[in-house]
Amino acid sequence: MAMSSENEHPVKAFGWAARDSSGHLSPFKFSRRATQEKDVTFKVLYCGICHSDLHNVKNEWGITSYPVIPGHEIVGVVTEVGAKVTKFKVGDKVGVGCMVGSCRSCANCKDNLENYCPKMILTYGTKYYDGTITHGGYSDIMVLDEHFGIKIPDNLPLDGSAPILCAGITVYSPLKYYGLDKAGMHLGVVGLGGLGHMAVKFAKAMGLKVTVISTSPNKKKEAMEHLGANEFLVSRNTEEMQFAMDTMDGIIDTVSAVHSLLPLIGLLKNNGKLVMVGAPEKPLELPIMPLLLGRKIVGGSNIGGIKETQEMIDFAAKHNIVADIEVIPMDYVNTAMERLSKADVKYRFVIDIANSLKPI
Amino acid sequence: MAMSSENEHPVKAFGWAARDSSGHLSPFKFSRRATQEKDVTFKVLYCGICHSDLHNVKNEWGITSYPVIPGHEIVGVVTEVGAKVTKFKVGDKVGVGCMVGSCRSCANCKDNLENYCPKMILTYGTKYYDGTITHGGYSDIMVLDEHFGIKIPDNLPLDGSAPILCAGITVYSPLKYYGLDKAGMHLGVVGLGGLGHMAVKFAKAMGLKVTVISTSPNKKKEAMEHLGANEFLVSRNTEEMQFAMDTMDGIIDTVSAVHSLLPLIGLLKNNGKLVMVGAPEKPLELPIMPLLLGRKIVGGSNIGGIKETQEMIDFAAKHNIVADIEVIPMDYVNTAMERLSKADVKYRFVIDIANSLKPI
Repeated sequence: MAMSSENEHPVKAFGWAARDSSGHLSPFKFSRRATQEKDVTFKVLYCGICHSDLHNVKNEWGITSYPVIPGHEIVGVVTEVGAKVTKFKVGDKVGVGCMVGSCRSCANCKDNLENYCPKMILTYGTKYYDGTITHGGYSDIMVLDEHFGIKIPDNLPLDGSAPILCAGITVYSPLKYYGLDKAGMHLGVVGLGGLGHMAVKFAKAMGLKVTVISTSPNKKKEAMEHLGANEFLVSRNTEEMQFAMDTMDGIIDTVSAVHSLLPLIGLLKNNGKLVMVGAPEKPLELPIMPLLLGRKIVGGSNIGGIKETQEMIDFAAKHNIVADIEVIPMDYVNTAMERLSKADVKYRFVIDIANSLKPI
Repeated sequence: MAMSSENEHPVKAFGWAARDSSGHLSPFKFSRRATQEKDVTFKVLYCGICHSDLHNVKNEWGITSYPVIPGHEIVGVVTEVGAKVTKFKVGDKVGVGCMVGSCRSCANCKDNLENYCPKMILTYGTKYYDGTITHGGYSDIMVLDEHFGIKIPDNLPLDGSAPILCAGITVYSPLKYYGLDKAGMHLGVVGLGGLGHMAVKFAKAMGLKVTVISTSPNKKKEAMEHLGANEFLVSRNTEEMQFAMDTMDGIIDTVSAVHSLLPLIGLLKNNGKLVMVGAPEKPLELPIMPLLLGRKIVGGSNIGGIKETQEMIDFAAKHNIVADIEVIPMDYVNTAMERLSKADVKYRFVIDIANSLKPI
């Protein structure tokens, strides 16, 4: 019989876990491994709440094994390092995004694309090298293979930088990979949530013209005045959409709900690229003729590799980019999840773990 | 009132036209413009029958205006040149593909992508600069702006090179644009018709490993022994398809029928590219998660520009590539259309215009 979460490792830990598909989170005792030679152990300071945490705690993707301690937008301070650690020292700030391990030997890993490694180990809910299940950042401490740690630049506030370890890299990586990072290009951003607002910030910092495309007209003021978008399109306004046809070099589509791709493909210039980073559960309808006639593509992208995540956060530091957040205490998490399910947050909840997670 | 096809221009011409959506073709008198200063006039020798001719004569895309003289895979010999023609002289062999005009000033045109010019003029059934409707290659003579003429290399047989002016460039261009032209890459080709068999030939000449994917197991011998494909997958054989997952750098999908993209996306490696060159009339189902998890794309491509078409045919000449054809006389065209609708041809019908089109 497998050992319990509380006893399988030598180091006592605690956090908040969901026990079943109600998704309700509550205090939970577990354990962490002792610091191995390539590990850093760190005290968790802040952890963002990603929409995928919500999917996970409610088992909406059908892959959750309970208890699950979510959290993969984590910033902390190093408290111990293994004998062979070179990247961090005690007292350093460290960030962790969606993954904590990969095979390190496949073509993807060799190409700094650990995020596409078939053996990629997620920050929570996945079997680690040692056979135990990983636990996320809604917890007091973490132990991490240093390779998967991100160095947080000094000028970035720790709370606002936590979400960019997932939401930030998820939009930064496709901007780079799909060549949508050239000053003067015109980028559409579909959906103005956690991912979308980061896409606007990064694209603006890269010198792009940015148009936000949203179902909600009431996001216009915010998008343009606060986030600095150049234009705003209401996706249900066919006249506005028609007027903007053939104007965009690329679109980052962050929407996870089933939606129509045809009007978005229409917004693209010839050779334009529609990049999906949201993951609708059902297939979307893809009209083929518009792809042919404009040599357009629909592509996907999934977070980013460690090297690129470091590059992204260094870019963020240079341009003073952080996520817009609402900092909450640990015991507000269930209310936050409820509000997140209604998109009632601008734009990310971040849990103040260090100051509000009480030992049990 | 517009003048009749027979009288609108000074030069008498004849060909075969469809008069209505029965698609039945029969002899037809019309006229061609006199040779303008940048025009070449040529005697049509051979004209391929493209599947889109069949769609057009039957008005299956709802855009046909009758009478329509089809044909956009044309090879002929120049009989007269305008005063300012520099590219051709009398006696030269000349090829024409899908287009005979474009705006020549937009970004696409300037980038040698006349095929994506919004004002691109199709070889038949489109309004020309002078307001008359263009007529295709199922006819005795053509008058052509020299810019849109392709020089046919001496070593290429004229009958077999006619179809590559459409079917050839349609698959060659995406191999180049999507970077699927590197020796050692693994390419899938879906559908073994006019486009598919050209894709196999070009990809093999570029040094790729080629796997044909077809619904018809009985095409295996032909694909491998005659066309030189390395492997053959029966798309309905889930075991075969499963075994080939994650092995391909790209796929050229030539199928115009509605079909499932999910298994094809599964065949791609990470960063793989599924390129549609067939045009199903209805949208296809696009599963998003597999695109994300493998950073894969689905893209389109539509013929190619004039410069690239010349490059393609020069490449074909260098590698002795022509289409596999069945040469037919003009009066067989209706039977050929009937057979084409049943995919009963290996792989292209080519009408021997010069020897079988009788004046009326």
